[in-house]
Amino acid sequence: MYNMSPDPIVRHARREDVPAILELIRELADYEHELSSVEATEEKLLCTIAFAPSSSTSTVPAADETESTSSNKPARCLILLSPQGIPAGIALYFYNYSTWRARPGIYLEDLYVKQSERKKGYGKRLLVELAKEVVASKGGRLEWSVLKWNEPSIKFYESIGAKMMSEWVGMRVDGEGLNKLAALLD
Amino acid sequence: MYNMSPDPIVRHARREDVPAILELIRELADYEHELSSVEATEEKLLCTIAFAPSSSTSTVPAADETESTSSNKPARCLILLSPQGIPAGIALYFYNYSTWRARPGIYLEDLYVKQSERKKGYGKRLLVELAKEVVASKGGRLEWSVLKWNEPSIKFYESIGAKMMSEWVGMRVDGEGLNKLAALLD
Repeated sequence: MYNMSPDPIVRHARREDVPAILELIRELADYEHELSSVEATEEKLLCTIAFAPSSSTSTVPAADETESTSSNKPARCLILLSPQGIPAGIALYFYNYSTWRARPGIYLEDLYVKQSERKKGYGKRLLVELAKEVVASKGGRLEWSVLKWNEPSIKFYESIGAKMMSEWVGMRVDGEGLNKLAALLD
Repeated sequence: MYNMSPDPIVRHARREDVPAILELIRELADYEHELSSVEATEEKLLCTIAFAPSSSTSTVPAADETESTSSNKPARCLILLSPQGIPAGIALYFYNYSTWRARPGIYLEDLYVKQSERKKGYGKRLLVELAKEVVASKGGRLEWSVLKWNEPSIKFYESIGAKMMSEWVGMRVDGEGLNKLAALLD
């Protein structure tokens, strides 16, 4: 866990990082006043994220060193350790697909940097690592979503080359709606 | 390929369906006046979609019968055959992830029903099959995006239980922007 270099380390999460990952997920939810919405537990995270081996000595992200992703375990997680060894940020992501390009890409589901570790470029560092993975795998796109009112974040994202997909809106079916839709034609 | 029953058949795409899939993808792009954006070829689709075996006799979708998905091959494809055996529609999708729930789900990248086969409930049928897969795998969400001006589609989606995620906007980095972002800290 320790990092004695002056730079932060970004690497793929290992099983032993799960308590720190859950803490960061809960901090993010608390920041958004949604702590009660967090159903994630250490067990659930262990079952649904593709981790790097504990024995890995790699201090750079290498997706092909981690477990394979699958339909039950679609997520990967980058963790950023500060020079002091603090788990300061995470990027939780999965692989998306562009039909017209017939190419995979990456969708960043959650990016979070601990409040005490902000303004150090850590968010940018995590985004750069994801862009590197997309480029290395000859993928097509790096995508994510942001709350519309979050103008500082949108400005930051635009400054590093992201475009707003303003003409599109997301649709979601979950909870009881999902059971109803699944049974609609029975 | 033939379907002698009076009902449409929905099953996972097989390698031999690829010419029909590409034709449907091109029809969709042409409909959106974006045919020149289609970089997909039969070869590229063969490399990036997880297919069901050609020997499968299954006429119902069963994701666990298809190849495993992976970071290079994240997509699955349902194909709908009309009672006349015409490949009438496709649903191309991949597995997404909800961090707060620590659960996978499905993101529907493209849903298309041939123009001559519309008004027969085929789009709904494909969405129901995806909802069934999410429920069967104890997943959390079925999600997709729609063009904001496409009110008839939005109304249809809301009628089957989908909610608009109006407070969110998508961000995307692709093309030259992706190379720039990947090299931003070099």
